[in-house]
Amino acid sequence: MIVLDRVDKVESIMKRRGFIWQSADIYGGLAGFYDYGHLGTLMKRKFENLWRKFFLGLDSNFFEISTSVILPEDVLKASGHFDHFTDPVTKCKKCNFVERADQILEKQLNEKFEGLSKEDLNELIRKHNIKCPKCGGELGEVSEINLMFPVEIGPYSKIKGYLRPETAQSSYINFVREFNALRKKLPMGLAIVGKAFRNEISPRQGVYRMREFTQAELQIFFNPEKADEHKDWEDIMDYKLRLMSVSSRDKVREMSCEEANKELELPKFYVFHMAQIQKFYIDILKIPKEKIRFFELSKEERAFYNKLHWDFELETEGFNGFGEVAAIHYRTDHDLKLHQKFSGKSQEVFYDEEKFIPHVIEITFGIDRNIYALLEFFYGERDDKSVLFLPPKIAPFDCAVFPLVKKDGLDKKAFEVYNKLRKYFVCFYDDSGSIGRRYARQDEIGTPLCITIDSDTLKDNTVTIRDRDTKKQPRVKIGELKDKIEQFFENT
Amino acid sequence: MIVLDRVDKVESIMKRRGFIWQSADIYGGLAGFYDYGHLGTLMKRKFENLWRKFFLGLDSNFFEISTSVILPEDVLKASGHFDHFTDPVTKCKKCNFVERADQILEKQLNEKFEGLSKEDLNELIRKHNIKCPKCGGELGEVSEINLMFPVEIGPYSKIKGYLRPETAQSSYINFVREFNALRKKLPMGLAIVGKAFRNEISPRQGVYRMREFTQAELQIFFNPEKADEHKDWEDIMDYKLRLMSVSSRDKVREMSCEEANKELELPKFYVFHMAQIQKFYIDILKIPKEKIRFFELSKEERAFYNKLHWDFELETEGFNGFGEVAAIHYRTDHDLKLHQKFSGKSQEVFYDEEKFIPHVIEITFGIDRNIYALLEFFYGERDDKSVLFLPPKIAPFDCAVFPLVKKDGLDKKAFEVYNKLRKYFVCFYDDSGSIGRRYARQDEIGTPLCITIDSDTLKDNTVTIRDRDTKKQPRVKIGELKDKIEQFFENT
Repeated sequence: MIVLDRVDKVESIMKRRGFIWQSADIYGGLAGFYDYGHLGTLMKRKFENLWRKFFLGLDSNFFEISTSVILPEDVLKASGHFDHFTDPVTKCKKCNFVERADQILEKQLNEKFEGLSKEDLNELIRKHNIKCPKCGGELGEVSEINLMFPVEIGPYSKIKGYLRPETAQSSYINFVREFNALRKKLPMGLAIVGKAFRNEISPRQGVYRMREFTQAELQIFFNPEKADEHKDWEDIMDYKLRLMSVSSRDKVREMSCEEANKELELPKFYVFHMAQIQKFYIDILKIPKEKIRFFELSKEERAFYNKLHWDFELETEGFNGFGEVAAIHYRTDHDLKLHQKFSGKSQEVFYDEEKFIPHVIEITFGIDRNIYALLEFFYGERDDKSVLFLPPKIAPFDCAVFPLVKKDGLDKKAFEVYNKLRKYFVCFYDDSGSIGRRYARQDEIGTPLCITIDSDTLKDNTVTIRDRDTKKQPRVKIGELKDKIEQFFENT
Repeated sequence: MIVLDRVDKVESIMKRRGFIWQSADIYGGLAGFYDYGHLGTLMKRKFENLWRKFFLGLDSNFFEISTSVILPEDVLKASGHFDHFTDPVTKCKKCNFVERADQILEKQLNEKFEGLSKEDLNELIRKHNIKCPKCGGELGEVSEINLMFPVEIGPYSKIKGYLRPETAQSSYINFVREFNALRKKLPMGLAIVGKAFRNEISPRQGVYRMREFTQAELQIFFNPEKADEHKDWEDIMDYKLRLMSVSSRDKVREMSCEEANKELELPKFYVFHMAQIQKFYIDILKIPKEKIRFFELSKEERAFYNKLHWDFELETEGFNGFGEVAAIHYRTDHDLKLHQKFSGKSQEVFYDEEKFIPHVIEITFGIDRNIYALLEFFYGERDDKSVLFLPPKIAPFDCAVFPLVKKDGLDKKAFEVYNKLRKYFVCFYDDSGSIGRRYARQDEIGTPLCITIDSDTLKDNTVTIRDRDTKKQPRVKIGELKDKIEQFFENT
């Protein structure tokens, strides 16, 4: 008998029940690409909507835009991606195996080397006498490879473009237009929830490092002179953040926002948004605080455009420990300034009685990683059966409706109830198999409530509502079902 | 004074207020690519959600999936796009101008030639002595150009892929997996709302022919032996369709579904879904019926995979008459059969006590064209000012909240009301400029309700609700606002 471990069990549910699997799998699959089935799509949409509600709700001047994924080369030359969005690669001189140099080192020396220069990596390879992990041959010089997918636009007079490596650039190049279309006020936030693309050398760990993925990013434009203030600072100044700073990589320190501002010299406007990210995971996604932390990246590790860079990490087995699911970057005026220079169009605004280029704080989430992490995190077992104890607000279905048996008019009545409820809730109808099996099938995909129509229903118009977690099945009048379900979701 | 015509006025609102504009416009714009600003994004999301609710609501076995936009070459070789997804192109021998041959003919002969073979087009060019529209030079032989964007995956050992030219293929290659994850029943529907890409020779007419666009497609898999039935046939058999068949291109005929089934020999399963498309436009989007029609494509005109192909067209000035906004295709088992052949994986199902490859009816919508058409269609003027008379359910904002003046605590009270309402509605807060200007600004973007907080509010907790269309402003208690607004939306 094969005993599956936890990660395998979750992946089996993901594939078998309709969450996530590798793209084009009837053709052998495409490395780094994933498709969402009907359950994954419902859950992803719920996650995205919770994200929108939470982060766009932080300010009445935060809005979403939705933009093309193909960008002309000009934009990416200006942003620096054309020159700097690279990974260091080495090729075995004997067997031609190609891999990221930092990842070869990481595996063999059990240490992180992301962000080192190719010179440093070459030196480390020589110093530690690192060989090809496949054949033991000698590794060639490390070179830089650009990770963007080029696209040629137009059939003859080709214009060079790229699939965007991050959604952020589309917010920057639309900044002035939106500033004018909106209130002409700062702070202003532009969010994009959409696809981004990176031609990874070696995609790995399932959805952790994908070549096509969905980001939810929010660019907040603000007056740099007001970086050390936020209108709602008092609401969060005593809120405790879980921080692993560059100066304290051995352990997480709990620190109030006030302390983070003073001791770590992080500006209040930045700390305020760190607190919001942590609140999103603890209050909305119900992750216990010991499973999360902010991880600061050093100057060498962080992306070329960031002055401050803290990853937000979540601990799961599938990530082999803590893995990045979100991040907050202080990008300053880096991008707007370069777009001004390259496009020749002013990116200055007149606000607070002065003229200046705003600074940007970026909040960025990898949606796919989050979906995976949540599925694995809330996976559990009860009576030898799998149960996804997902927070009800991100479970694919809000509720399922069953007739106890498929006769005596129970199925007709159940379908009526289903048709009534589906106007308000994401609802699944199921009439096949024993009632016990139907409950188990819904437990396995995390459905928080199952409504069953039985012979009493025909007498007194009541149904049972079974709670996934308590397994209790109180009876409720059909006329009160909508309110009861709404209340249940409001209280979770 | 420049007098703008209707289309220019709508386009000015689209750009100025935050609906839609050309991508990368600070870099001069990218032909065939468009960005949605904050208002366009809200409207697009509402449209997509109405679409989902309506079309996925047709059957409890219809679901949405969400899949990668990059597909491996194998998939597109199987589907036929690699060989047949082409446009006929001619190049001027004198000035090198390149254009679609059918479009050159269309402009000069004022007739439609879409779908003709390159041989036929060459003959027409010779016969009518068609010259280069730019310089009058001789046109070269017509050749076929593939419209897909190629993408190379992986940095060294490159795998060939393409940006998908339609979302449909992702539903086909996931059919078996979803059939097993769902009920193992037919009909089954798989919808995808997402990006598709076509490297058009000459993108034109704004969002009408884009290189990157959003489709909402529903693939309905069914038993071909049951093509001439539908469980809800009786609900629509007397419903009148507006049809322009190949045999009657001179005028639209109104014909009941029953007549279309009998006289035009269209299968009931197909006609049922035609009726639903028409209902979506008339009942949900509130388009008057004389502005819409189904337009049948002949064998020569329709795509290589279709046995039946009716476009659904809407008449607007921007389209220069009737333009395609949706379509319904009978794709038979064309795609699944070829995927079975090319992948070696069986696409048969066992259902109704037999084993077979299902047939497919596809419902396809171009979201961008629809958004544009709706904006133009509902554009109007009142007292010399622009008003978007959009159906409330697709207006970007549900409501706006204003303090009458920005003092005496009215702004604080208004912001409280705004914060309360934004939990339930898409809501905009505005306190700048005169109240008249604020109403006008909301009229211009179609906001159906404006809520104003005035000095009476502080006395008796009532506010005014102004209706965009009637301009009436009844007073309502703040405690009843939520219910009143909900009722308003239910009744529209």
